[in-house]
Amino acid sequence: MLKNLVQNDKVAQKGSAIASVAVEYYQVPLAEVLSDAKHGDHTHFELILCRIRCHDGSEGVGYTYTGGKGGRAIFSLLEHELKPLLMGEDASCILDLWQKMQWHLHYVGRGGLVSFAISAVDIALWDIRCKQLNQPLWKVAGGHGNTTRCYAGGIDLNFSVDKLQSNVAGYLSRGFNAVKIKCGKPHYKEDVERVRAVRDVIGEATTFMVDANYSMTVEQAIRFGRAIEDQDISWFEEPTIPDDYKGFARIAESINIPLAMGENLHTIHEFGYAIEQAKLGFLQPDASNIGGITGWLQVANMALAANLPVCSHGMHELHVSLMASQPHAGFLEVHSFPIDQYTTHPIQLQGGLAVAPDIAGTGVVFDDNLLRPHQVKLI
Amino acid sequence: MLKNLVQNDKVAQKGSAIASVAVEYYQVPLAEVLSDAKHGDHTHFELILCRIRCHDGSEGVGYTYTGGKGGRAIFSLLEHELKPLLMGEDASCILDLWQKMQWHLHYVGRGGLVSFAISAVDIALWDIRCKQLNQPLWKVAGGHGNTTRCYAGGIDLNFSVDKLQSNVAGYLSRGFNAVKIKCGKPHYKEDVERVRAVRDVIGEATTFMVDANYSMTVEQAIRFGRAIEDQDISWFEEPTIPDDYKGFARIAESINIPLAMGENLHTIHEFGYAIEQAKLGFLQPDASNIGGITGWLQVANMALAANLPVCSHGMHELHVSLMASQPHAGFLEVHSFPIDQYTTHPIQLQGGLAVAPDIAGTGVVFDDNLLRPHQVKLI
Ligand SMILES: [Mg+2]
Ligand SMILES: [Mg+2]
Repeated sequence: MLKNLVQNDKVAQKGSAIASVAVEYYQVPLAEVLSDAKHGDHTHFELILCRIRCHDGSEGVGYTYTGGKGGRAIFSLLEHELKPLLMGEDASCILDLWQKMQWHLHYVGRGGLVSFAISAVDIALWDIRCKQLNQPLWKVAGGHGNTTRCYAGGIDLNFSVDKLQSNVAGYLSRGFNAVKIKCGKPHYKEDVERVRAVRDVIGEATTFMVDANYSMTVEQAIRFGRAIEDQDISWFEEPTIPDDYKGFARIAESINIPLAMGENLHTIHEFGYAIEQAKLGFLQPDASNIGGITGWLQVANMALAANLPVCSHGMHELHVSLMASQPHAGFLEVHSFPIDQYTTHPIQLQGGLAVAPDIAGTGVVFDDNLLRPHQVKLI
Repeated sequence: MLKNLVQNDKVAQKGSAIASVAVEYYQVPLAEVLSDAKHGDHTHFELILCRIRCHDGSEGVGYTYTGGKGGRAIFSLLEHELKPLLMGEDASCILDLWQKMQWHLHYVGRGGLVSFAISAVDIALWDIRCKQLNQPLWKVAGGHGNTTRCYAGGIDLNFSVDKLQSNVAGYLSRGFNAVKIKCGKPHYKEDVERVRAVRDVIGEATTFMVDANYSMTVEQAIRFGRAIEDQDISWFEEPTIPDDYKGFARIAESINIPLAMGENLHTIHEFGYAIEQAKLGFLQPDASNIGGITGWLQVANMALAANLPVCSHGMHELHVSLMASQPHAGFLEVHSFPIDQYTTHPIQLQGGLAVAPDIAGTGVVFDDNLLRPHQVKLI
């Protein structure tokens, strides 16, 4: 009986039925080649947009991105698998649609690439919700505030020490008071030298993190971690492969620097195991690959329950609102992929804090004129 | 110095450099609609072929499949991401190429859809190796023997009890002495009735398994498991979601039926956690989504070390050789997707055992005339 009532209610909301889903694929070049220890050289990033329109005319834009590979497959999942599923569904029922998408692609999913595609849809649905409320995302997602601590996330392993130093100096002059650099050089002593060279430039007061992109064995990570303990490092990100939760724990127990991870965890189950076993200091979900805003907030809730700060990876133009919304937020990553430069609200700093846009919706409004030259038509 | 020697050696093997990679996509209709508790109705399966040719003219065919969704994205990963990576690489260095593919797509990978694409390539490379050796896969992969125990895996949750009974009777008349049925009806008592109805038909001597496709909570699985303990069930497959390893353990501790899973585990790390935490009785890797023959044999090795029988899911025309090759093999699933009917060596039973093909290569040779009507050109 309850079931029937609910069904009737859904049918009654004809206006919020999804009328169209449009998918677009972009390859956006980077200003210069950026390198890390495991993904090698980045020359561009891929951006996949998902525009959802309902019968009542309400519209939302969602998106995901990659470091340059797999975007066409994400496009395919959106265009050929999720679009047919979504047509006619009630855009208001976000969590239910999130679950439907997960089960629809479960056999080829359980995380991985499928999580990227679901993320783009989910973000579009949240955009619609925020616009219907005529409220900004930072309020709808929690409302703790409209600013968040943040740091500049360098992708700089290919930079000489001189260039590395001038690069972080540039971050400080742009108003950042926290920076992260890559590590994972073939010999760890070179990494130690780079950390010291950066600390020399940024001084004692600047928050400083390092990121190995899981290029180290557990033993290498412990040796390197101990060698930089005197440099006041706020976290050591992805020292070893994300799958080795207990290896993370061995590192955490052996060095006096907290560990961080999340950008490579694609399901809430993976985050559950990481929280339980990896002895992390910070969680870093990325709404572009953890199932959108729904997935990101689920991880934020898990972080709250586990007494851990929630952080973010990538797409800072969106995460700024999510991070600002949460009482237990750590640091927003302002990522080296400048997606925000293709929107009407590039990231803004005030007194070292990042400020969430105060417009109805997710706050991410793409500037089509800027993006268009980079579109690649796939069908 | 060693590094240089190895590099020179690779360059010297020009003949085995990969000269072409061709990818093909098929939608193959099923003779009738087949249903399970979580994927709903299957009307067709997707087949994605990967043909690799080396400069010396050697050729291999690999493939993967899905239950009907995600195949176009797999095609995209093969055509746009893996093909450019593979061109010119030495096809002889299988494990190294396997790792290269994993890292190439790691950011969008760590299992999921990427594992399906890597599987198709890896199987093609093993096909080349076996042909170069002029040996069948069952020898190259281990050589324990050329036959394996097997069972007929029904996808039959939509069948009436009468049809279910005549279906399993059909399996017995085809020579099977082991059968599996689906469970996961809305009320567990209906599942219990179906199990009893099948046992009535197959008699005491026939091996009998059930498969819930993770449709149950832990408590539901325990209640159902206890209710069929008197039916001599050889395993209870995927009672609950694959991610809940400890939930599997709670079920295993509460019922007197061994548990099985594997078709939804896409990395060796996931199998590692399952072995460690889920208290399984049988592992069921699928070479089409665990990273091909390389991935399947890695899991077989893990099973050996953990004192567990290795089994298989799906694509029996390939797994028959892998299963026959292993001393600790459990039961080959003869799956309801009849991929083998489109090959020159459909599955053969002798005295209830499945017999591996005795031809050089993986033993899977597609009949292009049978497949062609089902090809869908994507580019
Ligand atoms: Mg990172
Ligand atoms: Mg199964």
